Amino acid sequence: MSTLSPTLELACELIRRPSVTPLDEGCQELMMRRLEACGFAVEPMRIAEVDNFWARRGGEGPVLCFAGHTDVVPTGPEAKWQLSPFEAQIDADGMLRGRGAADMKGSLASMIIAVERFVANHPNHKGAIAFLITSDEEGPAEHGTKAVVERLRARGERLDWCIVGEPSSTERLGDVVKNGRRGSLGAVLTVRGKQGHVAYPHLARNPIHLAAPALAELAAEHWDDGNAFFPPTSFQISNINGGTGATNVIPGELQVVFNFRFSTESTEDGLKQRVAAILDRHGLDWSIDWSLSGLPFLTQPGELLDAVAASIREITGHDTTPSTSGGTSDGRFIATLGTQVVELGPVNATIHQIDERVLASDLDLLTEVYYQTLVKLLAA
Amino acid sequence: MSTLSPTLELACELIRRPSVTPLDEGCQELMMRRLEACGFAVEPMRIAEVDNFWARRGGEGPVLCFAGHTDVVPTGPEAKWQLSPFEAQIDADGMLRGRGAADMKGSLASMIIAVERFVANHPNHKGAIAFLITSDEEGPAEHGTKAVVERLRARGERLDWCIVGEPSSTERLGDVVKNGRRGSLGAVLTVRGKQGHVAYPHLARNPIHLAAPALAELAAEHWDDGNAFFPPTSFQISNINGGTGATNVIPGELQVVFNFRFSTESTEDGLKQRVAAILDRHGLDWSIDWSLSGLPFLTQPGELLDAVAASIREITGHDTTPSTSGGTSDGRFIATLGTQVVELGPVNATIHQIDERVLASDLDLLTEVYYQTLVKLLAA
Repeated sequence: MSTLSPTLELACELIRRPSVTPLDEGCQELMMRRLEACGFAVEPMRIAEVDNFWARRGGEGPVLCFAGHTDVVPTGPEAKWQLSPFEAQIDADGMLRGRGAADMKGSLASMIIAVERFVANHPNHKGAIAFLITSDEEGPAEHGTKAVVERLRARGERLDWCIVGEPSSTERLGDVVKNGRRGSLGAVLTVRGKQGHVAYPHLARNPIHLAAPALAELAAEHWDDGNAFFPPTSFQISNINGGTGATNVIPGELQVVFNFRFSTESTEDGLKQRVAAILDRHGLDWSIDWSLSGLPFLTQPGELLDAVAASIREITGHDTTPSTSGGTSDGRFIATLGTQVVELGPVNATIHQIDERVLASDLDLLTEVYYQTLVKLLAA
Repeated sequence: MSTLSPTLELACELIRRPSVTPLDEGCQELMMRRLEACGFAVEPMRIAEVDNFWARRGGEGPVLCFAGHTDVVPTGPEAKWQLSPFEAQIDADGMLRGRGAADMKGSLASMIIAVERFVANHPNHKGAIAFLITSDEEGPAEHGTKAVVERLRARGERLDWCIVGEPSSTERLGDVVKNGRRGSLGAVLTVRGKQGHVAYPHLARNPIHLAAPALAELAAEHWDDGNAFFPPTSFQISNINGGTGATNVIPGELQVVFNFRFSTESTEDGLKQRVAAILDRHGLDWSIDWSLSGLPFLTQPGELLDAVAASIREITGHDTTPSTSGGTSDGRFIATLGTQVVELGPVNATIHQIDERVLASDLDLLTEVYYQTLVKLLAA
């Protein structure tokens, strides 16, 4: 019977807790005990039904925070899994299998082990180390990181650098880190016409006909060029619905649901104004319900990104590529504190899928990368 | 107690039979007995569940056919009627009230009385008089006039002129006759794209975006100028639907339901080709299910229209206006036999409504107009 590394031992302990979002199932308790044991001041922050905690070790000076979530997405039909999703076994190919192995209990284990070792080796490190952990990242995420960040902001907590454990790697550990995310701005557009009979179109105003040229213009619009870190802002209509179902009735209304994924070259207000201008130019009778899911954030090259990139090169022998592609993450909330945020975690090929798994040895490498980053930023 | 005119007597008898589509409830039996009594060869044509009949009196020479339907639309909530819809009473204002009074049992009564009197006065009239009566004009109309016309076509039945009893008048008896109807061509268009995530639009193809410029062009297209008898062909989208309901998914398909009301300046094939050309020019991956509800038909000024117009002027003292506006009618099926078709009936202000009614004296005038038309066309 093989002995597991400390990282894998802890990763398995976490995976065996079936913390389907927004449940935590004792994962945070386990993490808090370990952190307390090495000198952290630990502060549970249960908000509504969501378990979160904040932990901090150190004095004045720059703060490096590790952030992540203990909740996992549902398993789907368990019978379809090769190995039970909460057993946490390493297979013959060296893959650690289980729900959360990649997203992101593996990363949480690597963070804890890296920090334990760093504190042991550098008990009088510079600045401070912190943890911001939630159990609601995969769910509505209203009472998770977003809410904790508001508490930290209210009391003026300093937070210079943050590493989020999201599985950023695509082919090989560390090949990609995320140094930002696009913003996401959603809208439900209603275009009003006048209902009538298709045989008497002069008595009606068809909102589908009226809206079509405006929608064509919105779809063709060039919103910005993006920049070195972001692709150009994109506009996508996800849903369009108009009509009574009857084939001889001109409907009175058209509803269009669309979404912007936007770069730091555009702003929320700017996009809203440009949409309004296009709709007005086409003479439409319209209204919109806007909903902002997240502002874009970007961590420019600097101390944190440099430390992370150098550590990856040292440990894996390869360079890393900073990227801002993909969906949203809790990093967008933390970035609002003025924090440099980087997402760095294992390969994301199987996340949210049946048979989620991660190369076990990658988690040990990840521990080393986190450790080296701590050394570069906080070693006295 | 006043004595009703023969036309009103028969109209009341027909209204008291609650022949809600596709039921006939003995209306046709009543009509057939009256026609047989004055020398018609009567031929019931029950097709599927629908009662129809064809009747003919005369020899060689031109044939004038009266066409109509014994079925009526449902009453809606009977409690809302001032007088019970199947009692057929004449109110203090001289209005004959009841379901079918205007659409079109009044016309059927006028036709029978006019023909009885004409045959009595002109037993050796020229050509032939015919009746084509169905009990499914207000319903699906598959086994009504359309099916009877196919039987007549198959045996080479001659049909020169046809008066359909549809309530064509708008303000005053005979102010409008319909000498044609626009065609109606329906379509369900499917535009295919490729489903994907709104955060990764380069991996998807959004069918809403792709279709929008084509829909704008279809809505703006000038199909024809119409002509002296028809307004320009119109195109209307009645329904548009695309999207999974989720706000972060680019749908794989868009469905658009549209309808042409088309003049005799356009053809079914011509419209199909022009739509296809526009869709192709926009590079769409598309398919369409077309459904033709009716070709346009037009009765140019000529013997029938002249006789009808002159009779209206003689009886009412006013001119009539030929019109092709409004929805479809069974006239479109009869016109395919090469027949001149005119719709002439009472004022249509209350048809299909609660408290359907018609000025009782108008039905007596209508009998006179039908009679004079018979005289002009078939008196020996």
